[in-house]
Amino acid sequence: MKMQTKPLPLRDVRVNDTFWLQEMELVRKEMIPYQWEALNDRVEGAAPSWCIHNFRAAARLQARRRLGEKICLPGWPGTFETLPRKGEAPHPDRFYGFLFQDSDLYKWLEAVSYSLVRCPDEELERTAAEAVELICQAQEDDGYLDTFYILQERKGAFGNLENNHELYCLGHLIEAAVAWHQATGREDLLRAACRFADCVMAHLGHGEGKIPGYPGHEIAEMALYRLFDETGEKKYREMADYFLSERGQHPNYFVREANTRRAEKGEAPADEDDEAEKQRIQYYQAHEPVREQREAVGHAVRAMYLYSGMADCARETGDQAMRDACERLWRSMADTKLYVTGGIGATVVGEAFSLPYDLPSDSAYAETCASVGLVFFARRMLQLCPRGEYADVMEMALNTVLSGMAMDGKSFFYVNPLEVDPEACRKDARLRHVKHVRQKWFGCACCPPNVARLLSSLSSYAFTSSEDLLMIHLYLGCEMEVKLGGGEMVLKVESSLPLEGRVRISVLSGEAYGTIALHLPRWCSSPRLDAGGRTFEIEGGYAYVDGPWKEGDTLVLELPMELQALVADVHVRELHDQVAFRFGPLTLCAEEVDNGKELHRLVIPKEAWKNPRLDVKKIGGMLLPVVQLDALFEVQSRPAGLYATYSEDLKALESRQVTLVPYFSWGNRGEGEMRVWMRYM
Amino acid sequence: MKMQTKPLPLRDVRVNDTFWLQEMELVRKEMIPYQWEALNDRVEGAAPSWCIHNFRAAARLQARRRLGEKICLPGWPGTFETLPRKGEAPHPDRFYGFLFQDSDLYKWLEAVSYSLVRCPDEELERTAAEAVELICQAQEDDGYLDTFYILQERKGAFGNLENNHELYCLGHLIEAAVAWHQATGREDLLRAACRFADCVMAHLGHGEGKIPGYPGHEIAEMALYRLFDETGEKKYREMADYFLSERGQHPNYFVREANTRRAEKGEAPADEDDEAEKQRIQYYQAHEPVREQREAVGHAVRAMYLYSGMADCARETGDQAMRDACERLWRSMADTKLYVTGGIGATVVGEAFSLPYDLPSDSAYAETCASVGLVFFARRMLQLCPRGEYADVMEMALNTVLSGMAMDGKSFFYVNPLEVDPEACRKDARLRHVKHVRQKWFGCACCPPNVARLLSSLSSYAFTSSEDLLMIHLYLGCEMEVKLGGGEMVLKVESSLPLEGRVRISVLSGEAYGTIALHLPRWCSSPRLDAGGRTFEIEGGYAYVDGPWKEGDTLVLELPMELQALVADVHVRELHDQVAFRFGPLTLCAEEVDNGKELHRLVIPKEAWKNPRLDVKKIGGMLLPVVQLDALFEVQSRPAGLYATYSEDLKALESRQVTLVPYFSWGNRGEGEMRVWMRYM
Repeated sequence: MKMQTKPLPLRDVRVNDTFWLQEMELVRKEMIPYQWEALNDRVEGAAPSWCIHNFRAAARLQARRRLGEKICLPGWPGTFETLPRKGEAPHPDRFYGFLFQDSDLYKWLEAVSYSLVRCPDEELERTAAEAVELICQAQEDDGYLDTFYILQERKGAFGNLENNHELYCLGHLIEAAVAWHQATGREDLLRAACRFADCVMAHLGHGEGKIPGYPGHEIAEMALYRLFDETGEKKYREMADYFLSERGQHPNYFVREANTRRAEKGEAPADEDDEAEKQRIQYYQAHEPVREQREAVGHAVRAMYLYSGMADCARETGDQAMRDACERLWRSMADTKLYVTGGIGATVVGEAFSLPYDLPSDSAYAETCASVGLVFFARRMLQLCPRGEYADVMEMALNTVLSGMAMDGKSFFYVNPLEVDPEACRKDARLRHVKHVRQKWFGCACCPPNVARLLSSLSSYAFTSSEDLLMIHLYLGCEMEVKLGGGEMVLKVESSLPLEGRVRISVLSGEAYGTIALHLPRWCSSPRLDAGGRTFEIEGGYAYVDGPWKEGDTLVLELPMELQALVADVHVRELHDQVAFRFGPLTLCAEEVDNGKELHRLVIPKEAWKNPRLDVKKIGGMLLPVVQLDALFEVQSRPAGLYATYSEDLKALESRQVTLVPYFSWGNRGEGEMRVWMRYM
Repeated sequence: MKMQTKPLPLRDVRVNDTFWLQEMELVRKEMIPYQWEALNDRVEGAAPSWCIHNFRAAARLQARRRLGEKICLPGWPGTFETLPRKGEAPHPDRFYGFLFQDSDLYKWLEAVSYSLVRCPDEELERTAAEAVELICQAQEDDGYLDTFYILQERKGAFGNLENNHELYCLGHLIEAAVAWHQATGREDLLRAACRFADCVMAHLGHGEGKIPGYPGHEIAEMALYRLFDETGEKKYREMADYFLSERGQHPNYFVREANTRRAEKGEAPADEDDEAEKQRIQYYQAHEPVREQREAVGHAVRAMYLYSGMADCARETGDQAMRDACERLWRSMADTKLYVTGGIGATVVGEAFSLPYDLPSDSAYAETCASVGLVFFARRMLQLCPRGEYADVMEMALNTVLSGMAMDGKSFFYVNPLEVDPEACRKDARLRHVKHVRQKWFGCACCPPNVARLLSSLSSYAFTSSEDLLMIHLYLGCEMEVKLGGGEMVLKVESSLPLEGRVRISVLSGEAYGTIALHLPRWCSSPRLDAGGRTFEIEGGYAYVDGPWKEGDTLVLELPMELQALVADVHVRELHDQVAFRFGPLTLCAEEVDNGKELHRLVIPKEAWKNPRLDVKKIGGMLLPVVQLDALFEVQSRPAGLYATYSEDLKALESRQVTLVPYFSWGNRGEGEMRVWMRYM
């Protein structure tokens, strides 16, 4: 049995899951059209994206060039974001916005592609095809494709890899191109992506006259493995291997590059062994060779994209040192730096991982994109080695991914805290990054399109397979065509999650052999599998059921859902004497709308969580499980001042019903406090 | 009996207190000489202060002007701190350093003056007299005295009251001048201060051509009441009244001033009712008229200096609205914004008060200067109305004041956190303001000289009196001459604090009448007063013992000291299920050097603090009380991952001796963790 698996092709899975289909439909009906308007700067009240503007300007430039016109470019403005001067109308030929803005269109195209597979839509496909054409028109003759440098000045291209995101744009272009190719069969964008990749390879790498650099914001690595997979061209795998292997090597490329800029400003060069410089390049995970890294550090989204690429490399090349590094970095992240909501990145400074076990609830960063990236990483670890833990964390991360989007698909969280007091968010500058209501759109709109591309391709995270093994990591209701053990069948997955833990998998037609592996989630303490008389083996969080399979064969998995009370490891300073609740795959929270203000004064007795009242409630148009507990609320028995000598009668605990709702649904019923970790006694 | 009291003159009290004399001697022997070196830029490794440099340059300028020379000034550089250009030698005639740097010399002179009263020192007095002469030489003919504007450009003077600190320098000049006058009888600095005050009055105020402004950093208000008291000149009281009454009036002066600057930069003006603008000027407590203020907000040091001036005003003028405001602001501060260490200012952003009940331990700002200011405010509230609470908070604040200085007097904390993990301080940018070891000197060296001037005048905070009432707020061992009820006596105060709570007050000689009031500290639950057969009355935290008094009369006050376990009000989010300990007036803490790492895992059982082992230990050369408790340390019974389903056997509590030491003494025995609030059960 080949344990290394690949995602099932999107078009082989027809999702009909009650829960997830609603989320996917939000993406299709709300986010995709809305984002298209945003990319075109047609959303009232939102800062312009400039994305389509820039591609149009670049396409016009190329057309004029092809007509033989000599064009004088304005040069690089030296800022991360370029805006029209106050009071001036935007110039149609100038670049505006963040320098990585191209990637927004690529992310949109990727989400559109996935959506088209599930729901063909001629008009949407036509719109997308026009966008693809525009991208192709903007590309330079040598394949270079980054409107920022195309419109400002090509001279500087690849000159500031640390900050200027052109390889990040390449990565997103590839992801979009592969998705577009798979969805429509069209090769236009794939060709553009290959040409840009080839152009990059001509400039970067080892050897005479080449720049020994690598991406400042990782993603090209994992994208290149996908491009290799799609085209069969080994050079793309080699390019990814180069990016990974060169990263963090001595002498450090980012330090050298930064020293060039320092020299231009008359500043002293930095030494790569200097502690401050090391901490600076940790942000990019470029502080040491990736095979030697042991701790998940730096910008959390970058880290997830890098680790995903590393896992791809370990799988594709069998590199044991790379695989060991992936496992160490996973352990560091999962054992010391992961919020119970599946969020990662505890500090706003650098949107980064903090120290091990530093997991503050109120000032958490826990960027939506970072949890999207965690899903990428987890699936790749599953592909490397099918351990249930990876699927558990993937499921956990989806709590934060879903929290990132309002239940009407129209507003978004970038930051996903575990404790919110709206008054503090409004007035406390230390919490400036924390919003207590979802925002319409962001200037740096990375999160919403990332949510869109993940949700609309969710089946490729739920199911992976090899020749003789089908692995089910998430119970996503669907019908799928599976090739297994030389046969072929249509399999139906029915799931009542997250309301109930009942899963039924049945063969609708066909015949196949090989093994089906069912994930036994960590949140279920007593899973029961009725394999229709077959024996099965349980290993590493999966039940392996061997075929052969024929029409009518059925597996019924009962995953009794109960309220779980979770406590954190003793090393976590912020969470002592507190408990968080999970119901099945859903992390729960308490909201003011159900429980009043001052949620920190709620105390949950242990007996209470052993006798929860489970219910179902409509929140934001979705039927969701809610939990009621007989809890307590701490009151001051007598006025005693800010500090008083302890005495038994100083404070009292009054009875109080507490309602817990899914974390991802918070903030969909007006403004108010929210809290995940609750005191207990 | 006249309840409104004044501080006892410094020279009437000869301090011989075992504990406090050590601290005062540190100031005299270490800080004052060290600061003089610092003011003269002679401390190796420390950033130059430029203070004496600037005064010398200004004095030279005036001398040249008086010789008829026309001098062209460089104009204002537009920055808060001015430094010599890289690679260039400092120009002897230029201003350098922070724009409020003059105040450092004034603070030093104030501390020196107090010290000279207690310990005459010819050499020190000569050095100080030379410094005073230099100040007088730097003064302009019209009385103006701020070397920043004198050396850059007088034109801008009083043009940026919000930021440019010249009235702050005036305040410190007055404080120094009064102290110098009282210590030496010399009028030179007092005359300079009066002339500068007169110059300010000629430019500021209501009326044709005057600037309706007030200090951006308060202190002139309280200083002017002191100047009025020293000189009897009503105009200084009126000037203070004007500053207080004009502050925060509509139209708001700071908003208008800032709008002028905005207009110069082509920016839109702000409206004073705009929420962001309101929050901006809250920093200066200028968001509403002071008599209407209800919440302690903004920069904590500024707030304390303002409220001190307001209390002076209420006392001097009998203004009931002002008094009510003082009481409201005190309540806001003491009931919702005061750390158990006597620190104030919970947020680094603006070094300011945070929201009510927001009192985080690890990211606390709790600036040393703010607690110095709190002592000022508390004593003035005592002068207004003798309530024990004010003396209790004054005593509490001294914990943080003392923490500000190492026990060798050679290094200093600016920020006084209640929980420290050195690793986090080094690596977590959110804690950049928190130092885990005291620093040699600061570029903005406000705290050390503020500690010096407070400690060396401590007796004026311990004792206040009116014609027929002597109030003892702090038991500071000393001999003092007291005029009381028409008589005069020498009183001896003996105190074994903070090791034991035994106080003895005896009449050494003379005869007097009137009442002696003894503070009954909140930390003592069962004070016993042996008044030698006299009856006494207890009211508002004081025992009032009536005279007459003659040689040999003795009062013995027993203040049994026990370990007190304090819990915070239920509204404090960060402190639920935690306890802090106090032994007499000392707030305690646990340090790594005694208790190992991971102090958050310590759990103190209630029974433990009922049976403490009290001991005495030498820390930093001082004999201090320490407490040992039979506590517990939480361990993980079995590996369970970052989050695990709660079960009784998941974690265990192991026996662990815990040693608590005085908070102020932390960080004097090497680097390590520290924690004030401890978990309990």
